[in-house]
Amino acid sequence: MKKVGVAILGLGVVGGGAYKILTERREFFRATQGVDIEVTCVLERDPERVRSLGVKSEIVASNVFEVISNPDVNIVVECIGGVADAKGYVFDALNAGKIVVTSNKELICKYAQDLQRAAKRTNAGIYYEASCVGGVPIVRTLLDGVQSNRISSIQGIINGTTNYILTRMTKDGMTYEDALAEARKLGFAEADPSADVEGFDAAYKLSILSSLAFHTRVPFSKVFREGITGISGEDVEYGRGLGYTLKLLAIGKDTERGIEARVHPAFVKNTHPLANVDGSLNAVYLTGDAVGDLMLCGEGAGALPTGSAVVSDVIFAATHEGNRYLAFKSTAKAESDVRFVSDFESAYYFRLTLADRAGALSKLTTLLAKNNISIVDLVQRPSAADSATVVLVTHTTHEVSVKNAVARINTAGIAKVGSVIRVLS
Amino acid sequence: MKKVGVAILGLGVVGGGAYKILTERREFFRATQGVDIEVTCVLERDPERVRSLGVKSEIVASNVFEVISNPDVNIVVECIGGVADAKGYVFDALNAGKIVVTSNKELICKYAQDLQRAAKRTNAGIYYEASCVGGVPIVRTLLDGVQSNRISSIQGIINGTTNYILTRMTKDGMTYEDALAEARKLGFAEADPSADVEGFDAAYKLSILSSLAFHTRVPFSKVFREGITGISGEDVEYGRGLGYTLKLLAIGKDTERGIEARVHPAFVKNTHPLANVDGSLNAVYLTGDAVGDLMLCGEGAGALPTGSAVVSDVIFAATHEGNRYLAFKSTAKAESDVRFVSDFESAYYFRLTLADRAGALSKLTTLLAKNNISIVDLVQRPSAADSATVVLVTHTTHEVSVKNAVARINTAGIAKVGSVIRVLS
Repeated sequence: MKKVGVAILGLGVVGGGAYKILTERREFFRATQGVDIEVTCVLERDPERVRSLGVKSEIVASNVFEVISNPDVNIVVECIGGVADAKGYVFDALNAGKIVVTSNKELICKYAQDLQRAAKRTNAGIYYEASCVGGVPIVRTLLDGVQSNRISSIQGIINGTTNYILTRMTKDGMTYEDALAEARKLGFAEADPSADVEGFDAAYKLSILSSLAFHTRVPFSKVFREGITGISGEDVEYGRGLGYTLKLLAIGKDTERGIEARVHPAFVKNTHPLANVDGSLNAVYLTGDAVGDLMLCGEGAGALPTGSAVVSDVIFAATHEGNRYLAFKSTAKAESDVRFVSDFESAYYFRLTLADRAGALSKLTTLLAKNNISIVDLVQRPSAADSATVVLVTHTTHEVSVKNAVARINTAGIAKVGSVIRVLS
Repeated sequence: MKKVGVAILGLGVVGGGAYKILTERREFFRATQGVDIEVTCVLERDPERVRSLGVKSEIVASNVFEVISNPDVNIVVECIGGVADAKGYVFDALNAGKIVVTSNKELICKYAQDLQRAAKRTNAGIYYEASCVGGVPIVRTLLDGVQSNRISSIQGIINGTTNYILTRMTKDGMTYEDALAEARKLGFAEADPSADVEGFDAAYKLSILSSLAFHTRVPFSKVFREGITGISGEDVEYGRGLGYTLKLLAIGKDTERGIEARVHPAFVKNTHPLANVDGSLNAVYLTGDAVGDLMLCGEGAGALPTGSAVVSDVIFAATHEGNRYLAFKSTAKAESDVRFVSDFESAYYFRLTLADRAGALSKLTTLLAKNNISIVDLVQRPSAADSATVVLVTHTTHEVSVKNAVARINTAGIAKVGSVIRVLS
């Protein structure tokens, strides 16, 4: 039986999960996959992690050179994260002809092209299913399941932390602060939650997934990004009343005007499949010209779900002779030929405070109409003594029209704009 | 650029869809996949199909030998269906060393092992994503996306015709007959609908998917099968009132007692993701020990969705050097060692007509309790002058207990059992 040696760099949440699956399931993989996969080496500075996983001391390397020069290592699994150390390690591994499996979204997002070149030079391979959406096999699906399609859009809930927070705000009326504190307590959010709540994590993943879906490079710098820190429970509630659920969406589109890629909070109609993806669940909803609409939904984070993706890549690499390179082939369009759309189209939700005077609402709707914004739904409720809260949802319009309208509303003193939230249309 | 020649056997719905995608997207695939895939041959007896697709007459073969002896054919796509002609053609192709891509569930279900042997002998490959659940890449996911898991269960809505009929009955109050007639008119059901409505189609697919998920052979003969022809609108309505939606489910489980595989109508709680999979949509919901719950949802039939799966397999085969064999490796368990469970566990829905006499309900519940059936939910409503309709849902119990209880209820004259429907628990 073919023997394959695996080194794991970093035994944190994901690396630890991959270690457990690979060691506990070794016999199972021998029986079902016809290959004997052994963890022959680990690199981890924290002795407590090494101890708690029961790693034998003789396979603990003291530095990356020991890992890469080890002839019993065929596949290097990188679960360190970030680009400080991981970048150099992964290039070293590829240059030495080792296959690399990584869960590192920042690395893949920023250095995919360079990694691909390095992998090609030594005929190594690089796999990164675990970098996007945990256990959900979306990378494999884009590469090998729907590559027969022109994908026109990919919409997803691809960050578990923010989805947990928004679900608690929506279903249980919690404030943002309380929901965040709870997510921290449960290990869903880190001490510094900004990577999640500011949308960086989702933007890295969207950059990777859009690049795969649209066969071109969608750099991180071209991803519009807005987090959930400004979300108020009041808007969540008004949205619910209108039949919407608030989600942090990642949206990539390949349109006639160019490619758009954006991460921002958005109201989703309760009848849309993404509206029911709750808690730490993640989902990707894509549309192709042949397959139609396809949705994948599952755990987007965590030791075992993400470990599942890592180990699936390890098995794929161990059982396929021809290695795969990163598939950002970009042969369809030269990078300089790709246009990116920033003035994207969307429907919008507005919450405004209106002076309770005759004609105020009429002035508002006239101003909106002048900016090509027409209204689908409008609710007015008295708030303070001499003012009213108006909540409205628009038809599809342009981002720039909305920005212009908001500026005009404020300067003309017609109303105070409390919030503007995009609506999935 | 690598050139790959494809022959398509059968230009019906799926074969025609694959032909369109391959010919219309040839440039796109050159650009995005780095391979030039050309349809070099077709086999189709109906000249009208050939004409309407605009197939050039010089690539129309007059018999299968012309196809297989054609040196410009590397991949044979079989979309004839059934096993009468298709079986011989596919074996001929494999014996000649051609890669086979097929959408034929009956063929794969019945002859997977023999096909695998034939493919191995000539180092050909056989791919069959399109045999299961149309455009939803569930075969690829089981093979390469979650193969790192022990899969404990796979539950799905994997027949579009029956899902369309049940959705119309549930959402619009149609009778089974009217919904079937409409499905026929829209092309969702065939003139003889028995393959769909009696559950054969779903059972073939479940046999394939369970075999993949559980790494053993789950023969068609071991799949318990019950169709939807006996479903009445009355039960659909009562179920709705209790918070359930009726679906034709395919369920495969790997339990301590053995493997169970069954296709039957079942009530699904409205909060379960499968409850909202409506119309011609299909979905597969699987549970693995690492990935947790994962759901894939999309179009389960039709020319382009199923064509999408065919062409994805063609591209995979054309761009991977090492060919894949059918992955029913069965090395985990010898076929004779596999136990199959027929007395499976489930919750149940009963509709009964009870004589409106003191003590009748008490006798019924006592009898159920004696058969280890306990009740979760019970509604009694007057029906005729001297009788009442009782609808109840049980806790999880055994199939055999339910069969015994029904026999006793009938013989003891306590009530008339109108229907018994399993409930997804």
